[in-house]
Amino acid sequence: MPHYNPLVEGLSPPPVPSVLAWAKAYDGARGPLIDLSQAVPGYPAHPDMLKWLGDAAASPAYAGYGAIEGEAELRQAYAEHVAALYGAAVTAENIHITSGCNQAFTAAAVAIAGAGDTVLMTNPYYFNQETTLAMLGINVELAPCDAGAGFLPEIETIASALRPGVRALALVSPNNPTGAVYPPDLIQRIYELCRRNDSWLILDETYRDFLPEAHVAPHRLLQAKEWQEGFVGLYSFSKSFCIPGHRLGAITGGSKLVAQVAKVMDNLQICAPRAPQAAVAKALPALADWRLANRTEIAARASALRDVFSRLPQWKLKAIGAYFAYIRHPFPDIDSQFVAEKLAKLAGIVCLPGDYFGEGQESYLRFAFANADVATIRMLEARLAGFTLPGI
Amino acid sequence: MPHYNPLVEGLSPPPVPSVLAWAKAYDGARGPLIDLSQAVPGYPAHPDMLKWLGDAAASPAYAGYGAIEGEAELRQAYAEHVAALYGAAVTAENIHITSGCNQAFTAAAVAIAGAGDTVLMTNPYYFNQETTLAMLGINVELAPCDAGAGFLPEIETIASALRPGVRALALVSPNNPTGAVYPPDLIQRIYELCRRNDSWLILDETYRDFLPEAHVAPHRLLQAKEWQEGFVGLYSFSKSFCIPGHRLGAITGGSKLVAQVAKVMDNLQICAPRAPQAAVAKALPALADWRLANRTEIAARASALRDVFSRLPQWKLKAIGAYFAYIRHPFPDIDSQFVAEKLAKLAGIVCLPGDYFGEGQESYLRFAFANADVATIRMLEARLAGFTLPGI
Ligand SMILES: Cc1ncc(COP(=O)(O)O)c(C=O)c1O
Ligand SMILES: Cc1ncc(COP(=O)(O)O)c(C=O)c1O
Repeated sequence: MPHYNPLVEGLSPPPVPSVLAWAKAYDGARGPLIDLSQAVPGYPAHPDMLKWLGDAAASPAYAGYGAIEGEAELRQAYAEHVAALYGAAVTAENIHITSGCNQAFTAAAVAIAGAGDTVLMTNPYYFNQETTLAMLGINVELAPCDAGAGFLPEIETIASALRPGVRALALVSPNNPTGAVYPPDLIQRIYELCRRNDSWLILDETYRDFLPEAHVAPHRLLQAKEWQEGFVGLYSFSKSFCIPGHRLGAITGGSKLVAQVAKVMDNLQICAPRAPQAAVAKALPALADWRLANRTEIAARASALRDVFSRLPQWKLKAIGAYFAYIRHPFPDIDSQFVAEKLAKLAGIVCLPGDYFGEGQESYLRFAFANADVATIRMLEARLAGFTLPGI
Repeated sequence: MPHYNPLVEGLSPPPVPSVLAWAKAYDGARGPLIDLSQAVPGYPAHPDMLKWLGDAAASPAYAGYGAIEGEAELRQAYAEHVAALYGAAVTAENIHITSGCNQAFTAAAVAIAGAGDTVLMTNPYYFNQETTLAMLGINVELAPCDAGAGFLPEIETIASALRPGVRALALVSPNNPTGAVYPPDLIQRIYELCRRNDSWLILDETYRDFLPEAHVAPHRLLQAKEWQEGFVGLYSFSKSFCIPGHRLGAITGGSKLVAQVAKVMDNLQICAPRAPQAAVAKALPALADWRLANRTEIAARASALRDVFSRLPQWKLKAIGAYFAYIRHPFPDIDSQFVAEKLAKLAGIVCLPGDYFGEGQESYLRFAFANADVATIRMLEARLAGFTLPGI
C-alpha cells in the first residue's frame, strides 16, 4: 500500500465534527441544545448581504477566473476600512483576499516559513494554526499564557521564547480560545521584540469587530512607517458578516509580502471565490451600522454570561473577551474532553474542551458565548448548577 | 528584515497575469485580440447554472459553515456521475469537494507527501502542480514525454523513473499543456507500475468532459476492487460548467484518503464555498445535455484548428486534444517566451510559452483553442502566416 504523509496521518481528525457528534446524542431532557462550540454568530446575515451575494453569484461578471490577489473593489474597500480603523496609510496593494482566515494563515505561513523552520505560538492556541504548521513540517514552539495573567502573553516569556531564527510569532487577539483581548501597548511591545529578532508578527484579528469599542484601534502597529517589514494582519469576513459558508478572509501586509502570498495562493486555489468578494465590497461600508449594533448585542451576551457565572462558584470564568469565554470546570482531575462530552450529551451544552487548544488545558472549556442570545445564555445557569458527572 | 520562505521567494510570479499584461500592450492593428491563454471556455455558463448559483448564494441555508468534505448533496451527485462514467462502485464517501482543482491537487499532495519526499511528474507539466510541490519542499522528478510519441508518457520511461520511495506519480489527461489524451490501456499499465512501486497515481482529469466521446470511460482504474488503495482522481467544475470564479473541484479516492484530505482541508480553509456546491449538485444531472453539446462544439473548434495549421507549414501542430494544442513555432533558436510576447503584442494572439511548462520546451507554444469559437480560430491563419519577429 502506498503511504500517507505521516505529518497528516498523525493529526487527530478535525475537532469540530467530533464535538457536533456528541451534541447529536443529546436527548433534549434539559431543554433545547445550546451550541457554544464552533464560533458562528447566532443571528443571521443581513438581508442586504444575502441579496448582494445572490446578485453577484447569478451574474456572468463573476463566473470567470479573477485576480489572484482579490477583486479590485474588495481590496480597495477593505484597505479603506483598515486605514480608517487603525488610522494608517494602508492601500489596496497591501491587501490579499483569501478563502477565509484559515487560508489567510496557511498562505502567510507558507510565504514565510518552510519545513524545518520555527514559528512561535502562544499556549493555548487556535488549533488550526497549530495543525497547519505541523502538517507543513514547520516546528511549533509555544509561549505559555497564564490564567493568572488573564491569559495575556507576558513580555518576559515572549522575549525569551523569541530565539534567533524564529521566523514568526503568531498571535490571536481577541484570543481564541480564551477571549483575552491584548491591549495595544502589549501588542506594541511584543511587535518591537519581534522586530529586534527579525521575526514576523502574524496577528489574527478575526474577532476584532466584536470588541466593545468600535472606534478604538486594536493596536498602533500600522501607524509606524516600517510596518510592512514585520507585520502580517489576518482577518475573516465569516464572523462579522455571518457568512462563513461563503469563505472569505484577508491578509494585510507589505506589498512584497502580498507578492509572495500571491504565488502561494495561485498554487492553493488561484483566487478566492469572486461573487462573495463583490458582495462584501458593498457590505463593508453599507453594513457598518449593522455591525455596530452587533457589537452592542455581543457585549450584552458577554455581561449575561458574566452574571451567570457569578452565581456558579464551582465554575470559574477565567477569561472573557470579544467572542469566547474560557472556563475552569469544577472537576479537578477530570479531562476537559470527558467533561465536554458529558456536558453535550447530558446537559445539552456544546462547548470545546481546553485540550483541543494546547498543553495543560484539561481543566478548561471554551464557550463561544456569542453564538447564543441572552435568553439562551441565562439557561446555562440552571443546567450548570445541577450538573454532575455520572459515577464521580 | 524578517525572511520569506526561500522556496516561495524562488518561484516566478504567477504566469497567467504576466501574459495578460502582454495582451494589454496589443494595439488592435491585426483585429480583435484572440485570447488563447488561460483555459476558460469561450461560451457563458448556462442560464440555469447562474440562476441556481444566485438562489443558493442568497439563501441563509448556505451562509453557515458546512461539512469539511463537502455538501452531502454534491458528494452524492458527483459520486453518481463518476460511478456512471467509469462503470464503477464509487460512493459519496469516496468524494472530497475542494475549492477548485488546484486545491484538490494541493490537498492530495499534502495528504500523501511532505518536504523531502519525492513526487514524479511528466515533462512538460501543468505548472501549478510543479510550483505547488516546490513550495512545499517536495522533490519533483520528471519523466520526459517526447513530441515523437505525441507527448504520451512511455512505459519504459515511467518504469525506470518510478524508483523505490517515489510517493506518487502525477499525471494530467487530457493533458495540459499538450492536449494529449492518454489511452485507457496506457493509463492502466502505468497504474500497475505505480501499484508495484507502492506509489499513488494522482490523475488530474480536469478536461475529461471535452473528450469527443461522452460515453467512453477515460480509463478502467475504478473498476478494480482495490482502486481505493492506489488511485487519486482530481476534477474541476470550473471548465465543464464555465464557473471558475466560483472555485469548485473534487477529489475521488478511498475513504481513508478522504479522511486524510479532510484534515488538510480543515487547515487550508475549513470547507469549499457552499452555495456553488448546492448549485452544481443540481447542475450535474440537469445540464448533462448542455455539456454534451459543448463537447461537439469543442470538437468543431479542434478540427478548425487542425485545418488552420494544415495550411501553415512553418507552424507545427505537435499535439492536440480535448482543450489544448501544443505548437512548435518556426523560430528555431528563439525562446518561446519571446515568441509568445511578440505574438501577443504584435499579432494579438495570446498563448502561453512552452517554457512555463517545463524543461526543454522553448520551441513550443500552448494554444487553449477551446477558448475561441470557430470563426475566431479561422482568424489565426492570416495572422500567423504573416507573422515575423522584429529584427530576426
Ligand atoms: C482565530 C481564528 N482564526 C481564523 C478562523 C477561521 O475563519 P474563516 O472562517 O475565515 O476561515 C477562526 C474560526 O473559527 C478563528 O477562530
Ligand atoms: C490540469 C489542470 N488542473 C487544474 C486546474 C485548476 O482548475 P481549478 O479552476 O478547478 O482550480 C487547471 C486549470 O487550468 C488545469 O489546467
